[in-house]
Amino acid sequence: MINVTKTFLPPQEEYNAILKRAWYAGWITNRGALVVELEEKLKDYLKVPNIIATTNGTLPLQIAIKALGLSGEIITTPFSYVATTSTLVWEGCIPVFVDIHPKYLTIDETKIEAAITPKTTAILATHVFGNPCAVEEIEIIAKKHNLKIIYDAAHCFGVTYKKKSIFEYGDISTCSFHATKVFHTGEGGALFTDSDELNDKLFYHHNFGHYGPEVFQGIGINAKMSELQAAMGLAVFPYMKTILETRKGVVELYKNNLKSLGVLKLRKGTQWNYSYYPVLFDNETQLLSIQKLLNKEGVFPRRYFYPSLNLLPYADKKPCPISENISLRVLCLPLFHDLDDNNVLKICNIINRGL
Amino acid sequence: MINVTKTFLPPQEEYNAILKRAWYAGWITNRGALVVELEEKLKDYLKVPNIIATTNGTLPLQIAIKALGLSGEIITTPFSYVATTSTLVWEGCIPVFVDIHPKYLTIDETKIEAAITPKTTAILATHVFGNPCAVEEIEIIAKKHNLKIIYDAAHCFGVTYKKKSIFEYGDISTCSFHATKVFHTGEGGALFTDSDELNDKLFYHHNFGHYGPEVFQGIGINAKMSELQAAMGLAVFPYMKTILETRKGVVELYKNNLKSLGVLKLRKGTQWNYSYYPVLFDNETQLLSIQKLLNKEGVFPRRYFYPSLNLLPYADKKPCPISENISLRVLCLPLFHDLDDNNVLKICNIINRGL
Repeated sequence: MINVTKTFLPPQEEYNAILKRAWYAGWITNRGALVVELEEKLKDYLKVPNIIATTNGTLPLQIAIKALGLSGEIITTPFSYVATTSTLVWEGCIPVFVDIHPKYLTIDETKIEAAITPKTTAILATHVFGNPCAVEEIEIIAKKHNLKIIYDAAHCFGVTYKKKSIFEYGDISTCSFHATKVFHTGEGGALFTDSDELNDKLFYHHNFGHYGPEVFQGIGINAKMSELQAAMGLAVFPYMKTILETRKGVVELYKNNLKSLGVLKLRKGTQWNYSYYPVLFDNETQLLSIQKLLNKEGVFPRRYFYPSLNLLPYADKKPCPISENISLRVLCLPLFHDLDDNNVLKICNIINRGL
Repeated sequence: MINVTKTFLPPQEEYNAILKRAWYAGWITNRGALVVELEEKLKDYLKVPNIIATTNGTLPLQIAIKALGLSGEIITTPFSYVATTSTLVWEGCIPVFVDIHPKYLTIDETKIEAAITPKTTAILATHVFGNPCAVEEIEIIAKKHNLKIIYDAAHCFGVTYKKKSIFEYGDISTCSFHATKVFHTGEGGALFTDSDELNDKLFYHHNFGHYGPEVFQGIGINAKMSELQAAMGLAVFPYMKTILETRKGVVELYKNNLKSLGVLKLRKGTQWNYSYYPVLFDNETQLLSIQKLLNKEGVFPRRYFYPSLNLLPYADKKPCPISENISLRVLCLPLFHDLDDNNVLKICNIINRGL
């Protein structure tokens, strides 16, 4: 069976050896040495001033919303994983969907201003499949209207835009280190901000507001990464170069062997991370028939993102024709570190025959 | 150094051997076989109809509040860990503090009705140090006023009350499997309810609302336990009998060797889990001087719970004289599986001399 993603697992002995340090210290969570070391390594690798490692990739969104004091309407994208919208609603905000760009697949910055009302407090946009939003244009709009910016950068580990980490754009960026991501800690994630002051706030929020054991700085929940997770991150980390190279190889092979299928247009200035390989079919019928062919051969791509989030049961259903249309036609093909060439070619053949 | 708690770590080889199954399956999170196995084992052990294993012990509180649709005022206890109050506020509810019973240390059920207003939607009470609240009386009050009940049962792994798991009282109970708890998964926790319908709702909420990959049942966040955590739980689980016996030994030794210090009065009908050993000093000055003596000898008890939660910067500061008084005088002494008798006696001696 070939799934859309496959978790990169380092040799277990290497994980065990790192975890041994936690065993020896008798310290399994609450900012252990492994979490601290992982944060330092990632800060260096990503060239960012701040990072807070977290339990998963959704808690950072919840914390970012609280740290920025958001309420009312938040302008957001309908083309993202459900967490982007669901977290907004969970945190008591109203998602206001702005349609996406048909090629970049990120929120269409030219349509944002029309959606701003006196109740708008922020923009929560997703760098789709690691492709950056129009960050400069969005910043201009946000400044003009006094809005905060959160980027859901779940897919963006290692992505740079104009030679700067993508995590440095906006007020806060969140990332996922889920097992299916380019870099992972099993479950996991992180918060990024260039502002030291905001970083302090995020830090308090992610650990119950603790300022020492007996004093509290405002409210907080638990988003602490444990040593079990950090050990995974530290074990995966040395393989990042190989992971990115092998993924790049798969992407190139798809590109060269698939008949013309509209693919993601990367924004100029992007150093990409080969996180997903989305293909666009002519229509949903074609997608479904090809999905069926692939499934028959043991290949399981994923309709991702589907559905368009404006159509969620708890969303307002206000039309976003481009996102709705693309959601019906997009399929993410298997892409992972050890997907071998023969299997990529097999997948290409099945698709090409079915077109 | 002797800390208030110490994580029980099974031999690392045993953890590694269990985790090897996840490595072999290539499956590190998203309801892997280890999580499923752990849930089944715990259901059996705790004799409960439902359990949902979670990332930590705070997300269950957040999810319980959402699943019950709570808003407005929630009657709660000022004598608990900060998470109890902080989560309520995080989730948009107003905590209304009701003082505690001076001996049981749980919310004083006789004072609950006076605090109910038309805005009250629920009671969130804590089984303090594993000591059950007056669950029957609270149920009568809740029924009479149409209120929901959540129990923060973070401390209660294995506790039974009137021969029934403490997790079966109230609408929903939450537990913590944090590294410092009697049973643990590093970080971790669980949700319990006797209602299958409510359990379904909790389950959707804990996994983004996913009903299959492409359909969503309402909002959700990420509270999934990973295989890294479940492996720890499965490795700790066979030691539960030993852990409870050794903790019981420590508790007995404290009881027999400490000069009269008011201690927790267990509610009749409780099978306790030896989770904490709180002692009550005459006043804060005495507590601080003895804490200093202990620290000097490398012993680090914990002021737990302190401060009284009605005094948090974001709480209403309405007086809760008993909780405030007890918070100033209570110290939890070191209590863990391998605290040896000599050290317990040493701690008792330091305290007795200082009284």
